[in-house]
Amino acid sequence: MVSVTVWNEYRHERENDEVGEIYPEGIHTALAELLEDAGHDVRTATLDEDEHGLPQAVLDDTDVLLWWGHIAHDEVRDDVAERVVERVRDGMGFLPLHSAHYSKPFKRLMGTSCSLKWREVGEIERLWTVEPGHPITEGLDESFEVPEAEMYGERFDIPQPDALVFVSWFEGGEVFRSGCCYRRGSGRIFYFRPGHEEYPVYFQEEIRQVLLNAVDWAAPTDGPEPYFGNADPVEPIEK
Amino acid sequence: MVSVTVWNEYRHERENDEVGEIYPEGIHTALAELLEDAGHDVRTATLDEDEHGLPQAVLDDTDVLLWWGHIAHDEVRDDVAERVVERVRDGMGFLPLHSAHYSKPFKRLMGTSCSLKWREVGEIERLWTVEPGHPITEGLDESFEVPEAEMYGERFDIPQPDALVFVSWFEGGEVFRSGCCYRRGSGRIFYFRPGHEEYPVYFQEEIRQVLLNAVDWAAPTDGPEPYFGNADPVEPIEK
Amino acid sequence: MVSVTVWNEYRHERENDEVGEIYPEGIHTALAELLEDAGHDVRTATLDEDEHGLPQAVLDDTDVLLWWGHIAHDEVRDDVAERVVERVRDGMGFLPLHSAHYSKPFKRLMGTSCSLKWREVGEIERLWTVEPGHPITEGLDESFEVPEAEMYGERFDIPQPDALVFVSWFEGGEVFRSGCCYRRGSGRIFYFRPGHEEYPVYFQEEIRQVLLNAVDWAAPTDGPEPYFGNADPVEPIEK
Amino acid sequence: MVSVTVWNEYRHERENDEVGEIYPEGIHTALAELLEDAGHDVRTATLDEDEHGLPQAVLDDTDVLLWWGHIAHDEVRDDVAERVVERVRDGMGFLPLHSAHYSKPFKRLMGTSCSLKWREVGEIERLWTVEPGHPITEGLDESFEVPEAEMYGERFDIPQPDALVFVSWFEGGEVFRSGCCYRRGSGRIFYFRPGHEEYPVYFQEEIRQVLLNAVDWAAPTDGPEPYFGNADPVEPIEK
Repeated sequence: MVSVTVWNEYRHERENDEVGEIYPEGIHTALAELLEDAGHDVRTATLDEDEHGLPQAVLDDTDVLLWWGHIAHDEVRDDVAERVVERVRDGMGFLPLHSAHYSKPFKRLMGTSCSLKWREVGEIERLWTVEPGHPITEGLDESFEVPEAEMYGERFDIPQPDALVFVSWFEGGEVFRSGCCYRRGSGRIFYFRPGHEEYPVYFQEEIRQVLLNAVDWAAPTDGPEPYFGNADPVEPIEK
Repeated sequence: MVSVTVWNEYRHERENDEVGEIYPEGIHTALAELLEDAGHDVRTATLDEDEHGLPQAVLDDTDVLLWWGHIAHDEVRDDVAERVVERVRDGMGFLPLHSAHYSKPFKRLMGTSCSLKWREVGEIERLWTVEPGHPITEGLDESFEVPEAEMYGERFDIPQPDALVFVSWFEGGEVFRSGCCYRRGSGRIFYFRPGHEEYPVYFQEEIRQVLLNAVDWAAPTDGPEPYFGNADPVEPIEK
Repeated sequence: MVSVTVWNEYRHERENDEVGEIYPEGIHTALAELLEDAGHDVRTATLDEDEHGLPQAVLDDTDVLLWWGHIAHDEVRDDVAERVVERVRDGMGFLPLHSAHYSKPFKRLMGTSCSLKWREVGEIERLWTVEPGHPITEGLDESFEVPEAEMYGERFDIPQPDALVFVSWFEGGEVFRSGCCYRRGSGRIFYFRPGHEEYPVYFQEEIRQVLLNAVDWAAPTDGPEPYFGNADPVEPIEK
Repeated sequence: MVSVTVWNEYRHERENDEVGEIYPEGIHTALAELLEDAGHDVRTATLDEDEHGLPQAVLDDTDVLLWWGHIAHDEVRDDVAERVVERVRDGMGFLPLHSAHYSKPFKRLMGTSCSLKWREVGEIERLWTVEPGHPITEGLDESFEVPEAEMYGERFDIPQPDALVFVSWFEGGEVFRSGCCYRRGSGRIFYFRPGHEEYPVYFQEEIRQVLLNAVDWAAPTDGPEPYFGNADPVEPIEK
C-alpha cells in the first residue's frame, strides 16, 4: 500500500462539456478510484484548493504524487511548486502526466524547457515498449494503441532519461519518448505521455496498468539520508 | 519469495585452509543460508557438479543467479556460460560478485574486457552510496567500511552502468565503481565488488543487506515478451 | 583526416542484379568514395579477401571501421571478429551499418542478442533527431525521410545507448532507435540503421552527412592507456 | 578557435591577500590567458560589472562559458542566471568549476540541490579517469594528484551524468564524481571539481589540460534547430 496524492488542475472538466462528460468528477477522481481499487491510500488535491491542496503536511505524507495540469500551469504558486520539487528530492515519487510536461515542478526538476510538438486531431498513437524488462511494463503487451490521441512529437526537450521505457508512433508521422524514468535527489520520476482530457484515455486498460506499475515503481525506498556540509575526515573503524 | 540459485566455483574453500576456516561449507552455503533466512527459495550449484550444477531446468527455474568465481573461470564450459547469458536476456536476474568480474557470463554480457587493478594487502575499503534513492541502498548508512579487503581499482573496463550505486575508496589510494546496475535483454544485472575469499566479508551486516536488496531488485517482472522476426504492417484497431 | 576502413560482405552486389545496379562496385566502394571526397584516408576490405581483408596490421592502422554485412555473418571468422572487438576496446571507432546489427563484432560488443523486427516492402522511414546538440546531427534538419526502406522495429534488443540520437518512424506502424552511441573500452560505436542494399540509401544526402559526422565523432582521441593488473599502493607526490 | 567567456565572481582575490597572491588579477584572468594561448577568442566577465558582464549580446557571441563563483552566488541576478540557462539550452557550452556546483545556472540546469560534503584542510586529491576514451581525457595520464585541495565528498546531489569521466579519491576518506558531462537542450555541460581559490590549482598542468579539452568538447555543433509548437501532420515526400 502506497500513500498516493492525485493532483489535478481540474478546470477543463468544469468548463468544457465534452470533457465533463468523460470525467464528471474530474480526472483526479477517476485516477483516485483506480488507485484505491488497487489497495492504495489515496487523496486528491486540486488547483483551486487552498495551497492547491498541497500543504507541507500533505506532501510529507505522500509517497507518490500524480500531477495533471494543462491550461493553468502559471497559476500554480512558485512556493508550492518548489515544495513539490523539494519533496521529490527528499524521496517522494512523482508522476507528471501528459500536459504536465509543462508543469512547474517537472520543468524545475528537469532543468530543460520540456517543449515539444503537438497536434490535436484525434489520431492513433501506438506505444512500443523498448525496455521489456522494466517493472513499469509488467502485464503489458509489447505494444498497444490509444485510438484517439493528441499528438506529442520530438524533439522533446528533456534530459536523456535514466531509462526510456516507451516510444510512441503517431499516425501523422511523429515519434515521441512517451515513458521516461528519472531519479532526482532520492526521488523517482516517471513521465507518461498519454492522457488528453478530450478522450477517455485514463479508462483504457493498458494505460491504467502503466499507472499502477508506475506507482509501485516510484514509491520511496528507505535508503540512506546523505549528510551535506562541512565534514571531518573519516575515522576508519578499528581493524 | 524469489527462486535463487547461488553458484560458486568452490575451490579456494577446499584447497586453502584459511579460506576453509571462514567458509567451511563454501561461500555458496553461507550465501544460501542468508537468503533462505530471508524467506527465499534457494539452491546452490558448483563448478565441479555435472554441467556445473546448472542444467537448463535449473536455470529455467531460477529468478536470480548469484555467481562467485575466481581461479577457474576458464573451466566453466562455454555452453553453460552461454546458457546463463541467454537466461539473463530472457529475464533472469544476475549478481556477479567480486572476482566474478572476470567470469565468462559477465564478460559476455558486458562486451568489454572487465579488467581492473588489484592488490591484496587487506587494506580498508569504504563504500560510498552515490545514489541514495536506489532500492539496493535500502536500510544502509550512506557509507560503510570493509575493514580488510582486496583492492580493486579503476580503470574498471565496463560499459557505463545504467545506474551507479556505490563507489569505493581504498586506503592505498584507488577508487572503484563498486555497485553497478545494468539491464541486458529483459534481465537485470548488479555487479557488487566486495567479497574476497580470505576475509569474512559475506558475514558483514552491510554486505548482507546489499545482497538481500539486490536479489529483490533483480527478480524478474512479468513484462512483455517481444516478438523478433519478419513482421506484417500493424493493423490499427478500429476506432 | 581519419584513417578509415570500410568493410563489406560484398555478396548481394555480385549475386543480385538489382543490387548490383545500385552498387556496381559494392557498397564499400560507394562509401569509400564518399569518405575520400571528405579528405579521409580510406581503405576497403571484404569478406572474401584473405582474413576478410582485416589482418592485424590493417586494424592497427584503422581509426574508424565501417561494417556492412547481412547474409554471411556466420562466415566471418571468430578470430577476426574478436580482433575487431579488441581494436574497438583499444580505441578504434566502429560504425556497424543497418543489418550489421547482427554482425559478430557488434553482438559481442553489446552482449545482447541485437534482435529486432523487420519487413521488406519499401515503406517510408522518417528519422527524427532526438538529441539536436549531438555532433552526429551536424548540418541536418530535425527530421528526414528515407523514401523506400526496409523496416526495422522495436523491441531492438540492445543495451540502453549512452546517447540516443535518432528515432525512426515507419509507415507500417513501428518505431526504432536508429542512431545509437556507445563507448566500449576506449572505443566509440555508432550504430546507424538505414542502408538496405536494395535501395540507393547510401547516395542520399542526409545519410551521407550522418556517416561523415559519425566518422569524425568516432575517431579515437589520445586519452590515457589504463594499467590493468597487480598494483602497488599509490605513492602520493610530495607536497 | 572557440569564442570563450570566462566568468568569475572575483571577490576572494580582492578581499583575501593569500588568494590575491595566487591570482593577482583574478582567476578569470589566469584562465583567460590559458585559453588565449591555446588560440581561442576569449573574454572575461565578473560579478560586479553591469549585468555581471553578461548582457545578451555577450552570451549570444559566446560558444563556451566558464563559471567560477563561491561566496556570492546569491548576488547573481535571477534574470542573468536564466539568460545563461537559456543560452545553454540553445547550444552554448557551459563549464561550471569547483564551487560553481552551487551557482544559480548550474542548479537550474540540473534540477537538483547540487549539495555535497566539504572540508578545507589542504589534503591530497587524486583524480582517476574512469572513461579513458572520452575526449576530455586527451593527453592525460590515467590518474593525477592535486597536492592540496579542498575536499568535496559524495553524496553529490546531481542527476546521473550522461558520462562520468573522473572520480576523485581524497586523503581524508571520501570519493567524488569530479568530472561530469551532461547535455541539456542543445548545449553541453561539463562540471569539473578541482579549483579551490586558496591553492594554485589552475596553474597545474593536468588541470589546464582538462580545461582545454573541455572547451573543445563543449563547443556547439551546428545541429538542427527543433521546431516546438502546433504541427501539421507530416506530408511524406513523393516516392
